[in-house]
Amino acid sequence: MGDYRKLWTDLGVDLEKHDKLCAVLPELYGATYLSQENRPEGMNYFNFVVSEVHGLRIQELDEARKEGRKVVGTFCVFVPEEIILAANAISVGLCAGSQFWVEDGEKVLPRNLCPLIKAFMGAKIGGTCPYFQSCDMVVGETTCDGKKKAWEVLENYLPVHVMDLPQMKRYKDYIKWSEEMKFFIEKMEEITGNKITVEGLKEGIRVSNEKRKALKRLYDLRKNSPSPISGLDSLLISQIAFYDDPKRFTEKLNELCDELEERVKNSRENDKKRILITGTPMALPNWKLHSIIESLDAEVVVEETCTGTRYFENEVSPKGDTIDELVKNLGDRYLNINCACFTPNTGRIDDIIKYSKEYNVDGVIDCNLSFCHTYAIEHKDVEKSLKENNIPIMHIETDYSTEDSGQIKTRVEAFLEMI
Amino acid sequence: MGDYRKLWTDLGVDLEKHDKLCAVLPELYGATYLSQENRPEGMNYFNFVVSEVHGLRIQELDEARKEGRKVVGTFCVFVPEEIILAANAISVGLCAGSQFWVEDGEKVLPRNLCPLIKAFMGAKIGGTCPYFQSCDMVVGETTCDGKKKAWEVLENYLPVHVMDLPQMKRYKDYIKWSEEMKFFIEKMEEITGNKITVEGLKEGIRVSNEKRKALKRLYDLRKNSPSPISGLDSLLISQIAFYDDPKRFTEKLNELCDELEERVKNSRENDKKRILITGTPMALPNWKLHSIIESLDAEVVVEETCTGTRYFENEVSPKGDTIDELVKNLGDRYLNINCACFTPNTGRIDDIIKYSKEYNVDGVIDCNLSFCHTYAIEHKDVEKSLKENNIPIMHIETDYSTEDSGQIKTRVEAFLEMI
Ligand code: SF4
Ligand code: SF4
Ligand code: SF4
Ligand code: SF4
Repeated sequence: MGDYRKLWTDLGVDLEKHDKLCAVLPELYGATYLSQENRPEGMNYFNFVVSEVHGLRIQELDEARKEGRKVVGTFCVFVPEEIILAANAISVGLCAGSQFWVEDGEKVLPRNLCPLIKAFMGAKIGGTCPYFQSCDMVVGETTCDGKKKAWEVLENYLPVHVMDLPQMKRYKDYIKWSEEMKFFIEKMEEITGNKITVEGLKEGIRVSNEKRKALKRLYDLRKNSPSPISGLDSLLISQIAFYDDPKRFTEKLNELCDELEERVKNSRENDKKRILITGTPMALPNWKLHSIIESLDAEVVVEETCTGTRYFENEVSPKGDTIDELVKNLGDRYLNINCACFTPNTGRIDDIIKYSKEYNVDGVIDCNLSFCHTYAIEHKDVEKSLKENNIPIMHIETDYSTEDSGQIKTRVEAFLEMI
Repeated sequence: MGDYRKLWTDLGVDLEKHDKLCAVLPELYGATYLSQENRPEGMNYFNFVVSEVHGLRIQELDEARKEGRKVVGTFCVFVPEEIILAANAISVGLCAGSQFWVEDGEKVLPRNLCPLIKAFMGAKIGGTCPYFQSCDMVVGETTCDGKKKAWEVLENYLPVHVMDLPQMKRYKDYIKWSEEMKFFIEKMEEITGNKITVEGLKEGIRVSNEKRKALKRLYDLRKNSPSPISGLDSLLISQIAFYDDPKRFTEKLNELCDELEERVKNSRENDKKRILITGTPMALPNWKLHSIIESLDAEVVVEETCTGTRYFENEVSPKGDTIDELVKNLGDRYLNINCACFTPNTGRIDDIIKYSKEYNVDGVIDCNLSFCHTYAIEHKDVEKSLKENNIPIMHIETDYSTEDSGQIKTRVEAFLEMI
């Protein structure tokens, strides 16, 4: 890594604390990722991205900001990147996946709260996340109680724009969601000073669709048995999708997929159990469950999560000649995401069953972050439907600490033996 | 209590389990309520209501249903009783406040969940709440994650209509909320077969406003020092307001207030500390915090909760000649309720400060049920603003169990000494 200390200082990063973070990450990455055998060559780009996670990309953001572009942080796959791109701004997914930040978060938030929320808050108030420090604005949403109220706290540190996501999916909710998008367009125009045009929005849609296509291509390759890539590596790619430059990311991912296609041709059967993970997102660097599963005789072949299929499934139609038409297309795509924040959310169960077949999985692990009420409550329904479809399922509730890793390993082991 | 066993059996009540509940309640009521000294005469009606809580009122509901009227259960002060009344149906607030039901609730819901939600679910699935058993439909809302998802589970047991409450209070959210009300009107017309007319809705508004006025009168009397009525008794009255016949309730409460007015004239100063409670609702028979506080040298003089001011503050304007106009009036009143489910919700802080002055309080206790994220997160802001206004404040997070009662008592005691 180059010397970015001046850059970090300029961004208001707490250098001393940040050093501690920088001391932990490479070790964790080495143990989790670099120790894997027979990784695809194409992962080198993503290794590089991780090694420069607080360096080169931050420098890129800094340069863009010096040219007058704005950086917008997001925390949920409902926030339409297309609109951010159309305003010539940069979208950065900020969900934080490390225990490192939790302690600081608990200074201003209750302990009984989802670790993802405590972590992003801690990253900001501790000043240890250069991405957060690079953001001109954050876009929140009313998806869950914890985040909904956390915006009010976050607003003490930087500007926040909140999108009110409808909690149901009736016809009128689509209209409401489109209105919310238009409101967001106005906001983006205001902070960037750039008018969002039909052309610009079409280009944003095109760029995002290309990223989705590349991710879909990766996931389709994982349908092969064995999968040409580990679940860990796929997860990393999904995580990087949230903050890397979208065009470069798409190009590099497509190169990797070319290589994986070759691999598939020369692959030999293994007898690893094929696992689908469903539930809450796994933000960088939360690799906990994947690394437990893949340390056993199993591979994760698909994630029905927001760091998985929910991020890329369904493209936005580019058809239309007005902002209104394009916004309607955006609304149609985004409101079809099956997050547990909706009531009801039966589409998620349909997805899990569909993917279980398509990816030929042996079992499903439904995992939610502690204190995430919506996914925790939904588990009972998921379990019932999967059992009716003869798909084995287990439930894990966990946070970012490693205290329960041994116990989870034992439970997963028992599950793998059973299926 | 008369013999209601046949009635209960007809309603599908689990008699054996219900007997256990009936064995606990009178004892608790005796110890908490009847042991109070110098209670107003007018409390006799409310004592009677409690003694007949699963008897006479249930019989009334039964008779009404036999005449073809519908009974509708609600769980939140956002559900407009006026519309239920206008459809010639009966509204019953179902929030459940006893640990008794929690165990059954945990059979279908996660443990890490607000006890109020677990309790109402347990009351239904255990078949021990004759009110629930009397309901033809339940009206849910999307106020918090726990309830939002609990409706999906509850729907396995009885019909549920969910109202999607906006999570913000912008101009467009008022429009959205009015639409949701119209949707609810249609639903009520459908299940009752009664057309909701302008006249009927005006009458519903009038009846509800009268109830609000009576409650406001009670609360205004509590502004006197000393208050002519205990916090415990006032809380009970608020709790009964949710399920008693509204006209009778209003009449009896006004009679009590007449008596309290006399009391005020002859009252003598005491040196009890005057406490405002703010936070989550206290559903029947949750008297835990009030009884702890009033066992010490203090009196609760006002509750900024949904079993307090949020239930009755602001009347609905009866002006208008169309359903649309009246619905707009309903929307304006209801969306002004300051629940932590909104982001932001600064109005609640303004209310707490205003009431602190009006009721001349010595200190504020901000209390939320365990795992209620919205109120728990909001506490930091409440605390900050109150401190800025030199109003002492403490925070309590608790559930329905009595395990922490001793600890809470010690903390409250220390707080009372300090203020
Ligand atoms: S799980 Fe739901 S709230 Fe969380 S990122 Fe995904 S869509 Fe957003
Ligand atoms: S995991 Fe659940 S509680 Fe955490 S941010 Fe996502 S939706 Fe909210
Ligand atoms: S606290 Fe909020 S959600 Fe609960 S009853 Fe009151 S208004 Fe409804
Ligand atoms: S107390 Fe909080 S968590 Fe419980 S039902 Fe009310 S809003 Fe929901």
